[in-house]
Amino acid sequence: MSKKYVDIETLKYILYDIHKLENVLSKERFKDHDLESLNLFIDAVKDFSDRELHPYFKEMDENPAYHKDGTVIVHKQVQKVMYQSGEMGIIAACFDYKDGGLQIPFSVLQAAVYIMDAANNHLPGYPSLTQGAAELIVEFGKQELKDLFVPKMLTGVWGGTMCLTEPQAGSSLSDIVTKATPTKNEYYKISGQKIFISGGDHQFAENIVHLVLARINGAPKGTKGISLFVVPKNRPKANGTLEYNDVTTVADFQKMGQRGYCTTHLGFGDNNDCRGWLLGEEHKGLAQMFLMMNGARIAVGRGAAAIAMAAYRTSLQYANERPQGRKLSTDGKKNPTEKQSLIIEHPDVRRMLLLQKAIVEGALSLVLLASKYQDILTTTTSKEEKEKYHLLLEMIIPIVKTYPSEAGAVSVDNGLQVLGGYGFCTDFTLQQYYRDIRISALYEGTTGIQSQDLLGRKVTLQNGKGLELLSAEIVKTIIAASNDNDLKTYAKTLGNQLELSQKILGHLIPFAMKGNYERYLSDANLFMEFMSIVVVGWLWLEMAVDAKKKLAKSNRKYSETFYESKIHTMKFYFKYEVPKTNALAESLMSDEVLTIKKDKEFII
Amino acid sequence: MSKKYVDIETLKYILYDIHKLENVLSKERFKDHDLESLNLFIDAVKDFSDRELHPYFKEMDENPAYHKDGTVIVHKQVQKVMYQSGEMGIIAACFDYKDGGLQIPFSVLQAAVYIMDAANNHLPGYPSLTQGAAELIVEFGKQELKDLFVPKMLTGVWGGTMCLTEPQAGSSLSDIVTKATPTKNEYYKISGQKIFISGGDHQFAENIVHLVLARINGAPKGTKGISLFVVPKNRPKANGTLEYNDVTTVADFQKMGQRGYCTTHLGFGDNNDCRGWLLGEEHKGLAQMFLMMNGARIAVGRGAAAIAMAAYRTSLQYANERPQGRKLSTDGKKNPTEKQSLIIEHPDVRRMLLLQKAIVEGALSLVLLASKYQDILTTTTSKEEKEKYHLLLEMIIPIVKTYPSEAGAVSVDNGLQVLGGYGFCTDFTLQQYYRDIRISALYEGTTGIQSQDLLGRKVTLQNGKGLELLSAEIVKTIIAASNDNDLKTYAKTLGNQLELSQKILGHLIPFAMKGNYERYLSDANLFMEFMSIVVVGWLWLEMAVDAKKKLAKSNRKYSETFYESKIHTMKFYFKYEVPKTNALAESLMSDEVLTIKKDKEFII
Repeated sequence: MSKKYVDIETLKYILYDIHKLENVLSKERFKDHDLESLNLFIDAVKDFSDRELHPYFKEMDENPAYHKDGTVIVHKQVQKVMYQSGEMGIIAACFDYKDGGLQIPFSVLQAAVYIMDAANNHLPGYPSLTQGAAELIVEFGKQELKDLFVPKMLTGVWGGTMCLTEPQAGSSLSDIVTKATPTKNEYYKISGQKIFISGGDHQFAENIVHLVLARINGAPKGTKGISLFVVPKNRPKANGTLEYNDVTTVADFQKMGQRGYCTTHLGFGDNNDCRGWLLGEEHKGLAQMFLMMNGARIAVGRGAAAIAMAAYRTSLQYANERPQGRKLSTDGKKNPTEKQSLIIEHPDVRRMLLLQKAIVEGALSLVLLASKYQDILTTTTSKEEKEKYHLLLEMIIPIVKTYPSEAGAVSVDNGLQVLGGYGFCTDFTLQQYYRDIRISALYEGTTGIQSQDLLGRKVTLQNGKGLELLSAEIVKTIIAASNDNDLKTYAKTLGNQLELSQKILGHLIPFAMKGNYERYLSDANLFMEFMSIVVVGWLWLEMAVDAKKKLAKSNRKYSETFYESKIHTMKFYFKYEVPKTNALAESLMSDEVLTIKKDKEFII
Repeated sequence: MSKKYVDIETLKYILYDIHKLENVLSKERFKDHDLESLNLFIDAVKDFSDRELHPYFKEMDENPAYHKDGTVIVHKQVQKVMYQSGEMGIIAACFDYKDGGLQIPFSVLQAAVYIMDAANNHLPGYPSLTQGAAELIVEFGKQELKDLFVPKMLTGVWGGTMCLTEPQAGSSLSDIVTKATPTKNEYYKISGQKIFISGGDHQFAENIVHLVLARINGAPKGTKGISLFVVPKNRPKANGTLEYNDVTTVADFQKMGQRGYCTTHLGFGDNNDCRGWLLGEEHKGLAQMFLMMNGARIAVGRGAAAIAMAAYRTSLQYANERPQGRKLSTDGKKNPTEKQSLIIEHPDVRRMLLLQKAIVEGALSLVLLASKYQDILTTTTSKEEKEKYHLLLEMIIPIVKTYPSEAGAVSVDNGLQVLGGYGFCTDFTLQQYYRDIRISALYEGTTGIQSQDLLGRKVTLQNGKGLELLSAEIVKTIIAASNDNDLKTYAKTLGNQLELSQKILGHLIPFAMKGNYERYLSDANLFMEFMSIVVVGWLWLEMAVDAKKKLAKSNRKYSETFYESKIHTMKFYFKYEVPKTNALAESLMSDEVLTIKKDKEFII
């Protein structure tokens, strides 16, 4: 299979030149790393992905994980990738030295795992979730729990999961009923059912460490009565052996896409012998779990951005190789004796490819922006800066989860269309990308939930301070672009749309102030789309500003065409995507209320 | 499986009350039919679909058609549906009495097959394509060819196909190379390869009659050298037996969706013994084939509209049954001790359902509008009316192919999202509808090709006469709505957007006049989207005008809620969909040219 599933030049350009990795590298935490060593790490992961991930991409779709005899049978490459991710330090990358980590910047890890996602999105979830689960244990666990679980997880010997969803609750976590009953010992007895558990079990796992949300007997109702537990499939005994911990794999979920990444239904305590160890404080489980949620949401956006990238590279390659049809001559006709054109020469195909490029690279920049914020937040010693980047990150999180998922799916859809009928056939991978990416808008909070989070929580956080800070960042780029004759018209457009966002909020916020939250949030999805386009428009303008600067220099890292293609794609984004904000604003500021339930039922 | 895959009330409302079937029933051709008998026909097809199509919908996806030992193995229901479609007169419905037909209006057949499409879109293609192939033989064949093939096809004993695409040509039919060599007899020797042939072979077919585009030796290059041939898999001999005609099934195409509807690769004349009979005139094959193309394109739109309908009904049912989460109270919080809400009560879920309803019923009205035009065209004796409805049909064809396919896919996407994580799981059918509908934008000319057709050919037809006639139809509804106090604001909006379409054309047409066709057509897809929204907005306004009238009467065919839901959905369409035309207009009238190939390559 072609190794062109990712544009490494652009990835490094955005990481190094746009988001300026070197700035965070100056921090004490990263003193043992430099650009060169981190670049080698990224290249090693690319090489690893070429060898161990990408060749199995289609195979894993055609041979999905399945439930058999109480476990889940996954592709053999799951074991390889878990172990090697341990060995190469991918799982341990961002942990502290004291916890067995490498103190690599979060942005660098995201760039590296992005490559893995693009190579084969069915595999990176196994090590990624293990890393996430280990993070929670490190953050909230007592030293003995850490010692018991974390080393085996960071080396990829044991897997890890997060168990939130239950059949009757879905996204509504306040309805969780899984029970934790205190015992005389230091552990609780756990009983309940969890569904949609990614990587929940497989035949290669010596052990899987589940992070489970449950309710201690007598806990308050709702989200304020939820606690967090470590519940391994097998519990380690004092002598180092493992003992079965009464965690059963009830079933798996067969999915339309990402079929090699297993999704399981787990039962805890069917025989009243399932032990769980409390992490952190009683009843604070949800808040604790949510400390990890930012990382999980960036990961979903990263995965979607990467799938869209791989689909783009595939359709681009096809368009550069497939002859079909001819250009129109000045009489509007085609001359059948002329040689056929490559389809990349047809304007409509170019439009679809440029749309993909605009979404794919915009989404990538967004993911690495959030990762940069995370790095600054983790390393800064200034209280003011911590506050600032905390708010910026909170603002951007729902967007970084949603834009790559939603626009990424549109992008893959266009990629499939570039291949015509072949795009729909299983001989080509476009149809697989199309199916795989669709889960992104559902994972870790649907688009609806992210949109409620953005408008309902993030915009109003500290009286709008987050949005103010984000706007200030955008304005910096607008000012820089305004000083360039070729860019100032785009800067002006972006400025106008930023103002328009204020106008929209001016229209909506009074509803919240009057206590009509349902009305305030009813079109949150449209606001999400609006803000996403503005933010990604900003990131494109930022790239164009940089590209213009580099083009003015004689000494360039990349080719002239490379920089020109960035400016060209920015223009494409502003011509074809940015105008959509006006339509969204019109809908958002309409006085008609059509989606709030009244006495009469109109949806029939 | 639930029988609620189609909203029969709305289907009949649009057929009878909106597009007023009774008007065409007055024509001589239909004198043996009345509303009652045709209604019985539709009900019989619904009953047939409940019994013989819908129960196999999931099964056919899970057991796709496959190539084996030189044939294609399809689901057993293919045979049943072919025979019964013959027996019930579904295949013969629109043919003349003299050719073995029933002279049923085309609109009624479309309504009936729409039900079949909604029930199980993997099956109706088999009888539908057979009908299309038989139509061509009836239209262009000599009586002996008709006698030989048509009766067996109309009774569903033999199948039929259309063979256009070849591996090296794709959509570019001028590059067809399949050869037809004259012989001393009345037949030609055919040799060549055809791909993407739907229903091209299966184990139940006693015979399959292929309609093949080929080039007679020495024919001119390009589309003007293509002729049309009848090429059966087995040729009937004088004694009534069949003799193998050297048509081989080389392979099949495995697809992401519509997996029960086989797609084949056929070889003709590998042993120099494949006979084909010329239909109509030499070198006129493409024009002749295109006489059928309008029907085929309406059929694709109809199928997409039906899949979107079935997906809507499924997600609506789920939303009405699934409890999850709670409504926000006036402090913006949720009370966990309250009973869970049904998800249909959440505004965002209502928005997704209403979006589906707006697209689904709008698309249905569009399909039945085109069908009505077709009926008038077939039956009118007035030359003027023939001219008018010919142009109206030509205008609407690319839209009726495209809108249900593109917006329909968006609609199914929203339906999947309504189910949350379950929507992605194969236990539920939403993911299947999502995969199935995706082929619609590729079949019978991709969206790109339809858009070129709309802007490049149809808009400019007879100096814009077609668009003028269409606008006049739209204006009639605008005037009717303007006289209603509740509707006049929507009428005004639609009028503005209709004017805006003129402004866009005023911007674009000068490029064509200057011979810059590439520039003229480069954003044809956006123009298609613009016109689709205007046309469907018109159809919604038309429904609202009718609903308002009926609500004013005491004697109503449907419930008050039924009519109110139509008005409500119209408002939804104007709030959420119509504003998109402004964004599209902005892009269409931008002076930036970004998708036409220049010397430098910006797509990298």
